[in-house]
Amino acid sequence: MNQTKTRIGVIGCGYWGPNHIRNFLSLGHNGAEMVVAADRDPTRRQRISELYPTVKVETDASLVFQDPSIDAVVIATPVETHYPLAKQALSLGKHVLVEKPLVTDPGQAEELIYLAETGGRVLMVGHTFEYTAAVNRIREIIASGELGEILYIRSLRVNLGLFQTDINVLWDLAPHDVSILLYVLQMEPTAVMAVGNANINRNIEDVASITIEFDSDVMANIMVSWLDPRKVREMTIVGSKKMLVYDDISANEKIRIFDKGVDGPKDYQSFGEFPYSYRYGDIVTPFVQEHEPLREECAHFLECIRTGETPRSGGQAGLNVARVLSAAEASLRARGQRVELAPVPEQLSWPLSGAVDSIALKRAAGA
Amino acid sequence: MNQTKTRIGVIGCGYWGPNHIRNFLSLGHNGAEMVVAADRDPTRRQRISELYPTVKVETDASLVFQDPSIDAVVIATPVETHYPLAKQALSLGKHVLVEKPLVTDPGQAEELIYLAETGGRVLMVGHTFEYTAAVNRIREIIASGELGEILYIRSLRVNLGLFQTDINVLWDLAPHDVSILLYVLQMEPTAVMAVGNANINRNIEDVASITIEFDSDVMANIMVSWLDPRKVREMTIVGSKKMLVYDDISANEKIRIFDKGVDGPKDYQSFGEFPYSYRYGDIVTPFVQEHEPLREECAHFLECIRTGETPRSGGQAGLNVARVLSAAEASLRARGQRVELAPVPEQLSWPLSGAVDSIALKRAAGA
Amino acid sequence: MNQTKTRIGVIGCGYWGPNHIRNFLSLGHNGAEMVVAADRDPTRRQRISELYPTVKVETDASLVFQDPSIDAVVIATPVETHYPLAKQALSLGKHVLVEKPLVTDPGQAEELIYLAETGGRVLMVGHTFEYTAAVNRIREIIASGELGEILYIRSLRVNLGLFQTDINVLWDLAPHDVSILLYVLQMEPTAVMAVGNANINRNIEDVASITIEFDSDVMANIMVSWLDPRKVREMTIVGSKKMLVYDDISANEKIRIFDKGVDGPKDYQSFGEFPYSYRYGDIVTPFVQEHEPLREECAHFLECIRTGETPRSGGQAGLNVARVLSAAEASLRARGQRVELAPVPEQLSWPLSGAVDSIALKRAAGA
Amino acid sequence: MNQTKTRIGVIGCGYWGPNHIRNFLSLGHNGAEMVVAADRDPTRRQRISELYPTVKVETDASLVFQDPSIDAVVIATPVETHYPLAKQALSLGKHVLVEKPLVTDPGQAEELIYLAETGGRVLMVGHTFEYTAAVNRIREIIASGELGEILYIRSLRVNLGLFQTDINVLWDLAPHDVSILLYVLQMEPTAVMAVGNANINRNIEDVASITIEFDSDVMANIMVSWLDPRKVREMTIVGSKKMLVYDDISANEKIRIFDKGVDGPKDYQSFGEFPYSYRYGDIVTPFVQEHEPLREECAHFLECIRTGETPRSGGQAGLNVARVLSAAEASLRARGQRVELAPVPEQLSWPLSGAVDSIALKRAAGA
Repeated sequence: MNQTKTRIGVIGCGYWGPNHIRNFLSLGHNGAEMVVAADRDPTRRQRISELYPTVKVETDASLVFQDPSIDAVVIATPVETHYPLAKQALSLGKHVLVEKPLVTDPGQAEELIYLAETGGRVLMVGHTFEYTAAVNRIREIIASGELGEILYIRSLRVNLGLFQTDINVLWDLAPHDVSILLYVLQMEPTAVMAVGNANINRNIEDVASITIEFDSDVMANIMVSWLDPRKVREMTIVGSKKMLVYDDISANEKIRIFDKGVDGPKDYQSFGEFPYSYRYGDIVTPFVQEHEPLREECAHFLECIRTGETPRSGGQAGLNVARVLSAAEASLRARGQRVELAPVPEQLSWPLSGAVDSIALKRAAGA
Repeated sequence: MNQTKTRIGVIGCGYWGPNHIRNFLSLGHNGAEMVVAADRDPTRRQRISELYPTVKVETDASLVFQDPSIDAVVIATPVETHYPLAKQALSLGKHVLVEKPLVTDPGQAEELIYLAETGGRVLMVGHTFEYTAAVNRIREIIASGELGEILYIRSLRVNLGLFQTDINVLWDLAPHDVSILLYVLQMEPTAVMAVGNANINRNIEDVASITIEFDSDVMANIMVSWLDPRKVREMTIVGSKKMLVYDDISANEKIRIFDKGVDGPKDYQSFGEFPYSYRYGDIVTPFVQEHEPLREECAHFLECIRTGETPRSGGQAGLNVARVLSAAEASLRARGQRVELAPVPEQLSWPLSGAVDSIALKRAAGA
Repeated sequence: MNQTKTRIGVIGCGYWGPNHIRNFLSLGHNGAEMVVAADRDPTRRQRISELYPTVKVETDASLVFQDPSIDAVVIATPVETHYPLAKQALSLGKHVLVEKPLVTDPGQAEELIYLAETGGRVLMVGHTFEYTAAVNRIREIIASGELGEILYIRSLRVNLGLFQTDINVLWDLAPHDVSILLYVLQMEPTAVMAVGNANINRNIEDVASITIEFDSDVMANIMVSWLDPRKVREMTIVGSKKMLVYDDISANEKIRIFDKGVDGPKDYQSFGEFPYSYRYGDIVTPFVQEHEPLREECAHFLECIRTGETPRSGGQAGLNVARVLSAAEASLRARGQRVELAPVPEQLSWPLSGAVDSIALKRAAGA
Repeated sequence: MNQTKTRIGVIGCGYWGPNHIRNFLSLGHNGAEMVVAADRDPTRRQRISELYPTVKVETDASLVFQDPSIDAVVIATPVETHYPLAKQALSLGKHVLVEKPLVTDPGQAEELIYLAETGGRVLMVGHTFEYTAAVNRIREIIASGELGEILYIRSLRVNLGLFQTDINVLWDLAPHDVSILLYVLQMEPTAVMAVGNANINRNIEDVASITIEFDSDVMANIMVSWLDPRKVREMTIVGSKKMLVYDDISANEKIRIFDKGVDGPKDYQSFGEFPYSYRYGDIVTPFVQEHEPLREECAHFLECIRTGETPRSGGQAGLNVARVLSAAEASLRARGQRVELAPVPEQLSWPLSGAVDSIALKRAAGA
């Protein structure tokens, strides 16, 4: 019976936590009961109490995890705490929604996936963009073949700040681009190159350029920066038939489809001087009705808990992002050295990283 | 005495040649006499004859070079012919203006520089942007210190086509970015990384991302593409005090200066959680009166011939661009491998490539 | 003790009412106590109860007005009810903040002003834009003389919908433009012309063009429309020295100052062929830190109640807007006929110092 | 033999004259022979001689008109000379292309039409926009019914300068808007209102707002100004089904079609509170391949001379524009007074079929 509501606790009340609380409160009729929020900072706890007097506040996440009446928790704390907190929560039988990035170490992601699967619990990561109408429309457009064969993607995600002190710009901004790319392309990344610079803080890159190679010779370039005078969130997807620009800043024209292209002798061995013909056609801005994506995400979490369905942005989506970004981080350390991603073992359908440690192997073998 | 006019021949009547002819004709009162144009293509020759009936047309560049009455030539032919044509012209005593890029092999650039210097002839390369009011204003702004210490540059030069069949996008578009960067920054590049993809033609990259490291820890990222639905020419220069955006497409607001920045603990070894303060201030669009840059370039060529002055974009500027781009090409072939640029020999003031072959060494030693 | 807090009731819980409630709640530490909200619609009352459980809800505004413990009320109801509700509230000794437009009949505005003054109560109208940082900056810029003598203003306020059924587009959108103009120009309007069209509903104009003549030969054109595919809120203020564009839609560049102009022989009786010289100079976007203007407005209301100060947008500002727009309405009915505004009586400094004397009453009675 | 070529003279070598010369020269293979240009200004004559050495220059237009070898003339002189020059040219048997506006007095237009018709000569006016691909596409879109019933048009044509000293902004800029409107709407204007201000020069309006009423209750607002910091050329056409924005400044997106609208109770006598439903749909930018419109116009002039066809922008199009703008001028003088346009006599289909009969002459004599 679904008659009882899912009782929810939120760990971390910085930027994202209060937004989760607000959304779960508004989902009361959908089966959520927002019960408790935890943060070590008394100012944040007081702010939650004032805004949402019905929500209990705690200092310590463990108290929430150990409360048997709590069914599910959101972990919206600094990245380095995601793994231990999620591990503890899953071990204590909670469904877990972790803010992005899930973890920075793919091995940890695999362990969390294992814990969730063996324990029959939902593990989900907050890839918010996968819950926007625009990104879902782009995924449909690509799948429909309207763009033709995908050739190349260029993404730009820059603005001034907010500088982080625990992670660099790669882990702060690029999870968005990587999760969007994996979601809309549905292709497997095979190698990563990244370069960056730490301009303000000696040890933390604030600008980075990441190149991802996919199978089928598709290449994506992602530029992320905390040091830009203007805020830009723009992804250009070049297909053999049409090109699509996704501008997340635009209020009413997030997606534009350009009927432009070039017909060239891709498979010719030789050719004359100007064998190309350019196509210029209409530009279409499809109407997309957007809703608050975090609300869609929270509702999806509740739905997965209720039905047992695997989340759209489940643990494996978090693992896939971590695989790409940890390779990017390694490349960054090696000043742009190309890092190949290990092929996924054959008995596992992709997406799922292969063969990292005994736990993963055990799972691959049949656990 | 300036009484005699500089008699000019133009080699190559594709895109740039006719523009050179038009500008030299309009500079008649400034000492130019546009005499002859050469192209192997009869259609192009006929078009020149119709548009400019006073200009003689020839089939063969050699005839122009061998005409002792011609003082100076413009070489506006495909890139791979620049070196042999310029070499022949210099050897026969002509002043030479070569379209960009000067050459793709730095050794060839050094040889041309040597020939020009020993022969007392002007060797100039058509880095057109160095003759725009906007780029010169940016150079002044940087030199004035208004932006503070330069930290990072990001450049985007993309559009649909025009696909070239003799050179890739790196050699087609990036010479602009590299020549602008070297001109406005006045810093020495130390290493280059480049990745790219050949989407339309199997062997010719149509998208590329180039990272250039300069001394003083400055990094520049250049993205060039023939496969973009929109034409963008935009360079963002981030300084420690202000940030500047140069948008070459904008009719009236090519330069915008943002009084924005972040004050962070660059030299601290440790710091607390949010030690940064962001500065937000006015945005200023300085008024820049633009004239046709090719006309400025042609006039400068005439001036250098008259005075013996070294051109703003002389052979060494061409060499510097070739050094960076040939390193980028090497990195591209090695899938992003970092390529260090050889340090310039101590007895030579930069910019001048060091130590490539016997000719350069001889020159370095004192020729 | 809460004895010094201003106890507030909000009448009308459609679009603006809930925003007033939210802001007064957040101003609790500033002396506000948000007590009661009234609306005839049970759905709206329920929504308020859910969002703000501490706020009492009532069906009838009269109950609020008759409650002696309530100090001040906000009237956020349809326009035609503003006058009777405000009159009742003032008569019962409440301070009153009325949403814009205050009334559509200037005589009613004068009566409300009279009631407020004789009763010693604050009467304020919700000219929200007068509480934005941008509009206040524009007022300062004009007052400073930076733009020179003001010559001409053009304002554009168009979008698709929201169609009103009780008032036409003139009364719906133009109060913003008129209140901004009167506030930043500090000039007296002398005549009005208006034309419009009722395209969708037979009796309610959905597009209108309004021309206002001010003393000093200044002219303003205001275009308002509910029938435009794009949302535009843009005011261009042309001065003899500089020109200013105010774009309320822009996130970061609401104000741009163009150092452009034309120097012409304004006082010449005759002149030769091209006696003008154009000035082109820098464009400056001053940094303006915006806060929620409704919060500023609510805080100002509390401050005026506390200190007895006349509000920035007091009853007379509401009267001034009603004078202009009722003249515009008359012109609209007469298909563009120019309607002169009666000069303000000499013993009253403009804007009306407020004494509703015989002249004004006579005008109200018969104009 | 050149016997079939139309021998052309251009009168006036200010801004437009040289462009006509250039285009007719390039149309040589299409039957044009550009023979002679006349201007009183020796500097302009010299410039023509330098640019186009094959074109003869004259001081006096009469010499051109009296040359029996000249078939056709272009009149690109100040507006007040259009009528006497065109009259003389037609009287001497020339085909005549007059720059816009044809004349400022409709009676003069009717006389020129009469002269052309009785003499069997082509009379054409340089409504350049009618020769752009964009305006022709808009005409097709409207005619196709894609926008539904046309409801309302708003046009904005503003920039800084160029101030004229012989005509005000209405006659300088609005001929474009009026000729475009008449061409794309194919409706008859019935009344005009105009207001304006002379800010820089005491007697010459530099800003004006013009309202045109058409039959079928369609209203158009045109705002023209020489006093704006930014150049805008934008026309919004609101239909009952879709809305179209025509931005002449845009390089690649001159036309955008918004599938937006509002469905309202236009024919209802009463209705409830929110009877409207808004439609939001895709935005489409049709691909339009633009060519130089002046060249199209010149070619059309040659074609009409050859075939005897009535030009697209013939004398009657010039008359129609003059009717609207002279009414606007009258309204401007009367401070916005509505001026009705006399209905077109019944035996003439509108636009005037051209016979300058007694009714039209009577109207010209006394209106």
